[in-house]
Amino acid sequence: MSSLKIAVIPGDGIGREVMPEALRALDALNSRHDLGLKLDHFDWACIEHYQRHGDMLPPDWFETLKGYDAILFGAVGWPAAIPDHVSLWGSLLKFRREFDQYINLRPVKLMPGVACPLAGKKPGDIDFLVVRENTEGEYTNMGGRLFGGTQREMVLQESVFTRHGVDRVLHFAFKQAQKRGRKHVTSATKSNGIAISMPYWDERMKDVAAQYPDITWDQYHIDILTARFVLSPERFDVVVASNLFGDILSDLGPACAGTIGIAPSANLNPERNFPSLFEPVHGSAPDIYGRNIANPVGMIWSAVMMLEFLGEIQPSCTTAANELMFAIEKVLQEGPHTPDLGGQASTTDMGKAVADAL
Amino acid sequence: MSSLKIAVIPGDGIGREVMPEALRALDALNSRHDLGLKLDHFDWACIEHYQRHGDMLPPDWFETLKGYDAILFGAVGWPAAIPDHVSLWGSLLKFRREFDQYINLRPVKLMPGVACPLAGKKPGDIDFLVVRENTEGEYTNMGGRLFGGTQREMVLQESVFTRHGVDRVLHFAFKQAQKRGRKHVTSATKSNGIAISMPYWDERMKDVAAQYPDITWDQYHIDILTARFVLSPERFDVVVASNLFGDILSDLGPACAGTIGIAPSANLNPERNFPSLFEPVHGSAPDIYGRNIANPVGMIWSAVMMLEFLGEIQPSCTTAANELMFAIEKVLQEGPHTPDLGGQASTTDMGKAVADAL
Ligand SMILES: CC(C)[C@H](C(=O)O)[C@@H](O)C(=O)O
Ligand SMILES: CC(C)[C@H](C(=O)O)[C@@H](O)C(=O)O
Repeated sequence: MSSLKIAVIPGDGIGREVMPEALRALDALNSRHDLGLKLDHFDWACIEHYQRHGDMLPPDWFETLKGYDAILFGAVGWPAAIPDHVSLWGSLLKFRREFDQYINLRPVKLMPGVACPLAGKKPGDIDFLVVRENTEGEYTNMGGRLFGGTQREMVLQESVFTRHGVDRVLHFAFKQAQKRGRKHVTSATKSNGIAISMPYWDERMKDVAAQYPDITWDQYHIDILTARFVLSPERFDVVVASNLFGDILSDLGPACAGTIGIAPSANLNPERNFPSLFEPVHGSAPDIYGRNIANPVGMIWSAVMMLEFLGEIQPSCTTAANELMFAIEKVLQEGPHTPDLGGQASTTDMGKAVADAL
Repeated sequence: MSSLKIAVIPGDGIGREVMPEALRALDALNSRHDLGLKLDHFDWACIEHYQRHGDMLPPDWFETLKGYDAILFGAVGWPAAIPDHVSLWGSLLKFRREFDQYINLRPVKLMPGVACPLAGKKPGDIDFLVVRENTEGEYTNMGGRLFGGTQREMVLQESVFTRHGVDRVLHFAFKQAQKRGRKHVTSATKSNGIAISMPYWDERMKDVAAQYPDITWDQYHIDILTARFVLSPERFDVVVASNLFGDILSDLGPACAGTIGIAPSANLNPERNFPSLFEPVHGSAPDIYGRNIANPVGMIWSAVMMLEFLGEIQPSCTTAANELMFAIEKVLQEGPHTPDLGGQASTTDMGKAVADAL
C-alpha cells in the first residue's frame, strides 16, 4: 500500500480550533485501517507567517505542495490584521487557481438532530449538491479606476468566462447528477440583467445538457433561485453555478439546512494533476475565535470528503470515510452540541465525541 | 388642487391580471379623497406591441411619458415569445436608466396573516428595507466574446460603478435609516472575491457613513448575508446594495417573509426630474398566467408606495396611502387569500376584498 501525503494547513482563527478535531478522527482511522496517510503540518496562511515574512505563503509553496495528494485547510482571513485581498488572494484563491481546483463541491443536507430554520422541514427534505465554478467568473482583480479622487470617479470590474472553464464545471455537474437519485441539474444565472456573460453560460448549459439525455435540467435567475431555496428546497438535486453565484448558494443552502458550522467543501482538481483542497464552508470567524465554541463538524465532514476523494485511488479510505460520516451523524443526533446547534459543548467536547463514536 | 398624471402599463402575463385590482382601489380612493389622479393606459411593453411594431416601446416613449408624475407598471418578460434581453432591456431597464430611477426601494415585512417559512418568526421580527442601486453596477451589456465558436472561446463582462452612482444610493439609504426606528444601515458587498468594484463600494460606504454620525452601520459579504437573512432577519433595518446584490436580496427577503406575491417596489427618481415607476417584485409568471390566481397584493402595495411618493407633494395622497395599506393588512389577516397564501380565492376576489375594506 502506497502512502498518501496530506498537507495540513490550519490557517487562522477557528481554523486552528477545528483542525485538531479533524486530525483526532483521522489519526484514529489511520491506525485502525492502516490508511497510510502521512500528515505534514504547515504554519502558513496565517497572521504569524504574514507578520514574519510579509506574505501568506513562502515563495516555494507551489513546489513544496504540488506532490501532495490533498490539502486539509482550516480557514483564512483576519481583516483586522491583514487586508482580505492580501490574505485570500495570497493563499486560498491562489491554491484554487494555481492547483486548478476548478470544482468547488458543497453538499447541502438537513441532518437528523439539527434544528432547521425552515418551518416543517424534515431530514430528507433538503439534500442537494452545489457545484461551483472555482477559478474564474466574477472573481477577478481585472479592471481599474478612472478620474480617481474626483466627482467623475468610476470603476470598471471585469468578469471572465471561458468555454474551457464553463464547460468543464457543467460536465462535472451532469456527471454528479448521474450518480444521484433524482438525476436533475439546475443552473443559476442572471441573463436578464447581466447581458454578456450570463447568456453565454446559458448557451453552454444548453449545449452540454444535450449530451446528457438521461438527466433533466432547468435554469433559474439567481434572484428567484435564492427565494426557492427558502420556499421549496426539496426540488433541488444538483445546482451548478458560477464562482459568485455558487458562493452565495453554498452559504444560503447550509443556512437553510440549519447551520454553516457543519457545512463541508471540496476544492477539486478531478484529474489529480495537483492536490485538491478540503475546507469547511465557514471562515476564520474572528468574533468567536479563542472561546473553543466553534462547531468542528464542518472541518471533520471536509475530512470525510477528502477520504472519499482519496478512496477513488485507495479503497480503504472509502471505508474510513463511511465510518467517519456515520460518527458525525451519531453525534449530530445524540450530542454533545456546540452553541450554534443549541448546545453548550466545546469544540473539543464535540470533536472527541465524534472520535469516540468511530 | 393640481392633477397628478399616472401612466398605467400592465405589460405582460400576470401584470395584466393584478393591475386591474390596483386600479380598483385607486379609483375608489381617487373619488373619495378627490386626489386628482389622471390615469392614462398604455398597451406597451407587451407581446402584442412587440409583435406589431418589433419593439417594446414606441419611438416617442420618452417624450410621451416624461411629463408624468408616476408610472404604475405590472410585469414584463415572456421568454417563449421575446428574448429577455429584448423585453427587459427594451422596457423596464430602459425606464430605470433613461428616467434615472436610481433607487429601487423594496420593503421586506412579515405581515400578520401571512405564514412565514422561517420557523418561529412573528410579525415584527422581519421588517427591513432593501435600498438597491438601480442604474449601473453589474447590469451592463458591455463586454464581448473572443475566439467565438472555438475551444478557446472566452467572454468578458464589465461591471461599472461610478462615484456619482454609488454615493447617491448610499446617501439615500442613510436618509431612510434616519426616518426609521433602529437607525442602522447594512451594506452588502463581496470584496474578498470581486477585487476592484466591491472594495470601491466599501470605500465609498466608509466615506458616506462618516457623514451620518447618528446612524450605525456594518457590512457583510453577500454570501454570509443571504445566510443571515434566513438565520437572523431581526437584525436588519436598512440594507443597501448594488444592482445585482439588491436584486438577490429583494427576492430572498420577501421569500423569508412568506411570499414574493405581496412584495412591492418603487423605482425612484427622488428629484422628480422624471417619473418614478412602481411595480410588484414578482414578474410576469407565465406558469400561472391566465388562471386568475396571482396574488394582487404586490401590485396594490406598489400603488401604496406610489401614493406615498405622491403624498410628499400632495398630502391627500398620504391619507389615501395609509387607508390602502390598512385595507391590505386587513385582507392579509382575514382573507380571502390566493393560493400562494394557502387560500383558494382568485386574484379578483382578493382585489375586491381590498377595495371593499377601504
Ligand atoms: C426582470 C429583471 C431584469 C429585474 C431585475 O433583475 O432588475 C427583476 O428581477 C427585478 O428585480 O425587478
Ligand atoms: C473567503 C472567500 C474568498 C471565499 C469565497 O468567496 O470563495 C469563501 O467565502 C468561500 O466560499 O470559500
